[in-house]
Amino acid sequence: MKIKNLVGNRFKERPSDCVVDSHALMVRGGYIKNVANGIFSLYPPAKRVTRKIENIIREEMDRIDGQEVMFPVVLPGSLWDESGRYQSVGDELLRFKDRSGSRMILGMTHEEASVQLVKEYANSYAKYPFMIYQIQTKFRDEARPRAGLIRVREFTMKDAYSFHTSQEDLEAYYQKCYDSYNRIFARCGIPEVVAVASDSGMMGGSVSHEYMLLTPVGEDSIAICTECDYRANMEAADSIIENENLIPMGDLTEVHTPNEKTIEDVGNFLKVPVTQTCKAVVYQKNADDAYVIVFIRGDLDVNEAKLSKLVGENIHPAVITEESGIVAGFIGPKGLPENVTVFFDSSLKGLDNLVVGANKTDYHFTGFNIERDYGAVEYVDAAKIVEGGICPCCGKKTITVQRGIEVGNIFQLGTKYSKSMGLTYLDENGETKDAIMGCYGIGVGRMAASVCEVKHDDYGPIWPISIAPWEIHMCLLRADDAEAKAFADELYGKMNNNGMEVLYDDREDVRPGAMFADADLIGAPIRVIVGPKNLKEGLVEIVSRDKSISMKVNKDEVIEKVMEIRAEMFAKINEKVSE
Amino acid sequence: MKIKNLVGNRFKERPSDCVVDSHALMVRGGYIKNVANGIFSLYPPAKRVTRKIENIIREEMDRIDGQEVMFPVVLPGSLWDESGRYQSVGDELLRFKDRSGSRMILGMTHEEASVQLVKEYANSYAKYPFMIYQIQTKFRDEARPRAGLIRVREFTMKDAYSFHTSQEDLEAYYQKCYDSYNRIFARCGIPEVVAVASDSGMMGGSVSHEYMLLTPVGEDSIAICTECDYRANMEAADSIIENENLIPMGDLTEVHTPNEKTIEDVGNFLKVPVTQTCKAVVYQKNADDAYVIVFIRGDLDVNEAKLSKLVGENIHPAVITEESGIVAGFIGPKGLPENVTVFFDSSLKGLDNLVVGANKTDYHFTGFNIERDYGAVEYVDAAKIVEGGICPCCGKKTITVQRGIEVGNIFQLGTKYSKSMGLTYLDENGETKDAIMGCYGIGVGRMAASVCEVKHDDYGPIWPISIAPWEIHMCLLRADDAEAKAFADELYGKMNNNGMEVLYDDREDVRPGAMFADADLIGAPIRVIVGPKNLKEGLVEIVSRDKSISMKVNKDEVIEKVMEIRAEMFAKINEKVSE
Repeated sequence: MKIKNLVGNRFKERPSDCVVDSHALMVRGGYIKNVANGIFSLYPPAKRVTRKIENIIREEMDRIDGQEVMFPVVLPGSLWDESGRYQSVGDELLRFKDRSGSRMILGMTHEEASVQLVKEYANSYAKYPFMIYQIQTKFRDEARPRAGLIRVREFTMKDAYSFHTSQEDLEAYYQKCYDSYNRIFARCGIPEVVAVASDSGMMGGSVSHEYMLLTPVGEDSIAICTECDYRANMEAADSIIENENLIPMGDLTEVHTPNEKTIEDVGNFLKVPVTQTCKAVVYQKNADDAYVIVFIRGDLDVNEAKLSKLVGENIHPAVITEESGIVAGFIGPKGLPENVTVFFDSSLKGLDNLVVGANKTDYHFTGFNIERDYGAVEYVDAAKIVEGGICPCCGKKTITVQRGIEVGNIFQLGTKYSKSMGLTYLDENGETKDAIMGCYGIGVGRMAASVCEVKHDDYGPIWPISIAPWEIHMCLLRADDAEAKAFADELYGKMNNNGMEVLYDDREDVRPGAMFADADLIGAPIRVIVGPKNLKEGLVEIVSRDKSISMKVNKDEVIEKVMEIRAEMFAKINEKVSE
Repeated sequence: MKIKNLVGNRFKERPSDCVVDSHALMVRGGYIKNVANGIFSLYPPAKRVTRKIENIIREEMDRIDGQEVMFPVVLPGSLWDESGRYQSVGDELLRFKDRSGSRMILGMTHEEASVQLVKEYANSYAKYPFMIYQIQTKFRDEARPRAGLIRVREFTMKDAYSFHTSQEDLEAYYQKCYDSYNRIFARCGIPEVVAVASDSGMMGGSVSHEYMLLTPVGEDSIAICTECDYRANMEAADSIIENENLIPMGDLTEVHTPNEKTIEDVGNFLKVPVTQTCKAVVYQKNADDAYVIVFIRGDLDVNEAKLSKLVGENIHPAVITEESGIVAGFIGPKGLPENVTVFFDSSLKGLDNLVVGANKTDYHFTGFNIERDYGAVEYVDAAKIVEGGICPCCGKKTITVQRGIEVGNIFQLGTKYSKSMGLTYLDENGETKDAIMGCYGIGVGRMAASVCEVKHDDYGPIWPISIAPWEIHMCLLRADDAEAKAFADELYGKMNNNGMEVLYDDREDVRPGAMFADADLIGAPIRVIVGPKNLKEGLVEIVSRDKSISMKVNKDEVIEKVMEIRAEMFAKINEKVSE
C-alpha cells in the first residue's frame, strides 16, 4: 500500500509520558492509540505485526497437535465458583452483573472454560491426550498498567490447555510445548528468550516456566548463573547460604540497645557483623490478620512468594498493634506471644552466636544460640537470592540478578482444575480418575512490544522480517520527477504482482529526511530508495533497516536482489529455530 | 487430522431445547457449547468454519482498500458520552465499573472508538477517503438470545468504518461496499442473500441496507415485490393504500355501540366493512409517557418503527389511565384531550364516510368525514405494509412478506458521530468541515449458523467448500483390514502432503453407519470411502455431501479426482461472485 493512505500519524518527538522505548516508538510510529488506562486501539501497522505473530503461534500450536477453539470473553461467575477462583482472585478479576442480574466476569485466563468445554468429551482414557488453544481477547484489571503494550488491561493472548492421564504424559507434552515456545520466540526474531523456573502463583500446580526476554526495562527479576544453565524467577530461586561463625558460642546476655532501630544499627552499636545477627520480619495472613514472623540473617531479605507458599495462604506486611504483644524493633524468638507463627530461614543455620531482639523495648540479646536458647527448629528457605549468591545448581558463587519481560509461560497444573470441577475419566480398568492438565500462554501484544524493546534504535523499531508490518519500504525521493515516478510506480506494481509486501512512499511534498524518518518508524527491514540521480546511472539503492546492508543495484535487478535479501533474512531467523 | 482425536462429541438426537435446525445441528455436530445464556464456546469444527469466513471477509475488505485495525472490547463510558449513546442506548449496552470506579462498557459496535482512533489523523481533506475495519469480539446484552449462534450476546463481528469529505464520495464507497458484501456472501456459498432497504435504528444516519438470508426461521420480516426489485425491511417499507369509498358521504351521527370492543366488532355491529372504519392505536413516549394516538384504517396495523421516527423519540404501547381523559375502546379524533399528539395514517386519505370512536363510553360516530368534522390534516405513513399490498416501486399489488436472517448491514451514517465527537477536517479552502461516515457490519458466527440453516439436511450441515471445516472427509470402513488400512494411511499421507484438508476416520470400533452419521454432521463436501470390498476391485468410492456426486474411481486416481471435484466446487461458487 501507499504510505500516504496509511491511517495513523507519526511523530518526531518522544511523548513525555512514555517510560520505556517500545511504548514511545509505538506511539511515535502510529502503532497504538490509548483509549483508557491500559487499553489501546491498534493502528494498521500494529495489527499487521500482531497478525503475523498470531500466525506463527498458530502454526506452532498446530505443529504440536493443538486444536484451535474459541472461548468467550464474558464468562459466568458460577463457572469460576467451581474452581474457587471467583472468590480467591483479587480485584484484577473484573466482576459485574448482566441485565438479568447474573454475576459475570471478564476472562483473564480460561482454565475453567476449557474444562467446561471438554468435560463430557474427555470421559474415557482413550480420548487422551489432547490440547486445545485459542487466540482471543482477555481482560485483567491491573492496578498499574504501564509501558504501553507491555502491561495492559486488555490484551490478545494465545492460551492453550493440555489434558493427560498421567504425570509422565503431561511432562512429555510439557517438554514438547517448551520446545515449541523456543521455536515461536526464535521465529519472531528473539531467540535469546530464556526459560526460567518460576513460581506458579494463582494458577496452581507445581512445575512451571516463564519465558523471559532480558532487558533492563523488564518488571521481573531473574536469578541467572553465569557458570551453568541455572535460571529461575526470583520468586522460585532457592537461596543457599554458607555461614561462617565469626563469633564463637558465648553466654546469652541481655544488652541495652536504646534508639537502635534496625538490625544493622544494633550490629554497629554492638560491633557485631550484620551476618552474625538475626532479624525478624513480620507479616499478617490476609484471611484473619494472624501474625507470621520470619527470622532471617540480618543482611538478607524475605522472599514473600516463598513465604506465602510456606504459610499456605496470602500474606501482607504487618501492622503491629500494641495488643499484639509484639515489640516492634526488638523482636526475638524467645518470649514471643503464642499465637504467632514463626519461621527460621536457613540462613541462620549453623550460626552459634547471634544478636537478636529480646522482645523488650530497647533490649537485645547477644550470644543467642537458637538450639540452646530456643530449641530445635526446622529451617526453611524464605530468603531472596542475592547477586553473587551460591548457584543451587553448580554450587559456585555465580548468581547474577537480571531484569526481564515475561513473554510467555507454561504450567503443569496437575489436577487442580479437574478435581475442583469434576473433570474425570474412566481408565483402562473402568476406574474413575482425575484428568491431569497443563496450560501454556503467550501474550501477542506484549510480544510485539518486547521485540520492539530489544530491536530498535533511536529512530524506530528494527523489526525482524518475520513480524515486520511490511517487509519492504520503497521511498521515491522525487515524486515530481516524471521518469523516476514512472519507474517507481512500475517497480511497485511488479513487486505487488510478485506477492511482495511493500509500503510505497510516493508523496510529493515530503523531503527525503522526513521520508526516511517515517521509514525508520515503520521499521520494514528492507528499504528500496528510488531517486533520479541514481536512476540516471541505472541504479537503485537498497539498504536494510539494521544498516548491515547498503548497496546500489542495477535498476533491472531490484526485485531479484530484494527477494535474495529477503530469503537471507528469513534464513538467518530460521537458523535459530530448532527442529 | 484424525477424527478420533477431534475434540467434541457428536450426538444422534436433536436436543429438545433447540428451536431452529442450525442450532440443533451445531450442537449435535460438536460445533458449539453453551457457556451462559447467549454465550458459546466454539469447538474446533466451528472455529475452522469461522476462520474461513473471517479470511474471506478480510480479503474482500482489503480489496476495497480497507485497513485492518483493532479496537478494544472494553471501552470507557466517557467515550460513549461523547456520542450520547451511553445515555440513549438501552440495557443491551453492558455498563460496569472497573476497579478504580470508572464507568466502562462492553463494545457492541465501535463508531465512537473508530472516531477516537482517527480524530487527529484525519484533520485534512487530503487524508480522505479511507476505511478501517476490525474482526473482533463484541457483546450485546440481548434480553432474549435465541437460535444458537443466530442471536447471541457475545459474538465475533467484522465492523468497518469509512470516512469521506462529501456525500457523493460516501455514496460511491457505499456502493463499493454493497458490491463487496455481495461477493462475501457469494464466496461463503449463499449468493441468494438479498440487500433490503432498512431503518437505521439506533445507528443514526439515513440510507442503510440489511443483507437478508431468506428463511422461515428468520426473525426479520421483509417486504419483497414479486414483480420488480423492490425489497425493504418491514420497518422501512412504504405502505401505499388505495382507498375505495364503499359508503358515500353522509351525516355525522352518534350511535350507541355497547360492548363492542374492537373496531371489527363495531363494524360488524353497524354492518360497515372494516375498510370503512378508523381505529385508534395509542402509544406513550418513553421519555415522559405523553400520549401519542395514531388513527389508521381499521384493517391495518401500525409500524412502530415508522411511528417512532415520526414522533422523533422512542415510544411504547400505552397504559391508558382514567386521568388521561382518553376513553379506551371509543377513541376518535373529535374531542380528544389537548395534550395528546395525533397522527393520521395515509390509509384514511380519501375515505368520505368513516366509523370512528366518539370519545364517550359505548358511543361511536358513523358518517365521520375527517376534513369536514375534524379539519385539514397532514397524512403520514405509519402503517405496516401487508401481503398483497401495493409495491412502492412498480405500483402493482405484488408485495409478499417473507422472513429472513440479517447476515450483514451497511449504513450511511452521515455526520452523526463526527459532529457529536468533533471529527473535523480542513477542506481545500481551509474551512473546517465535519467528516462524513459510513459503517458496515457482518457477524461471523451468525453467518456460519445462517449458512447451516439454509444448507443442511436432517443429518447435518452441507457446508459450501469455501467455509467447510474440512474439504475432504475420508472414511476407512474396515480399519482392521490390514491392506485397506495401509492403503488409506498412505492416501491420507499423500493428501496431507498435497496440502489437502482431510479429516480421516480410521476408527476400528465404529461401524460404517455411525461413521457416515459423523461425516454427515461434520459436513465436509467431498467424502472418500475406502473399503476392502471396493479396494479388491481396485476402486475407491467418492461421494459428495450434497449427494450430487457418487462414483467409484480407480484407487490410483483418487487424489486427481478429488482435486478435480474440489476445483469444480470452487468454480461453482465463484461463478456467483461478481467482479
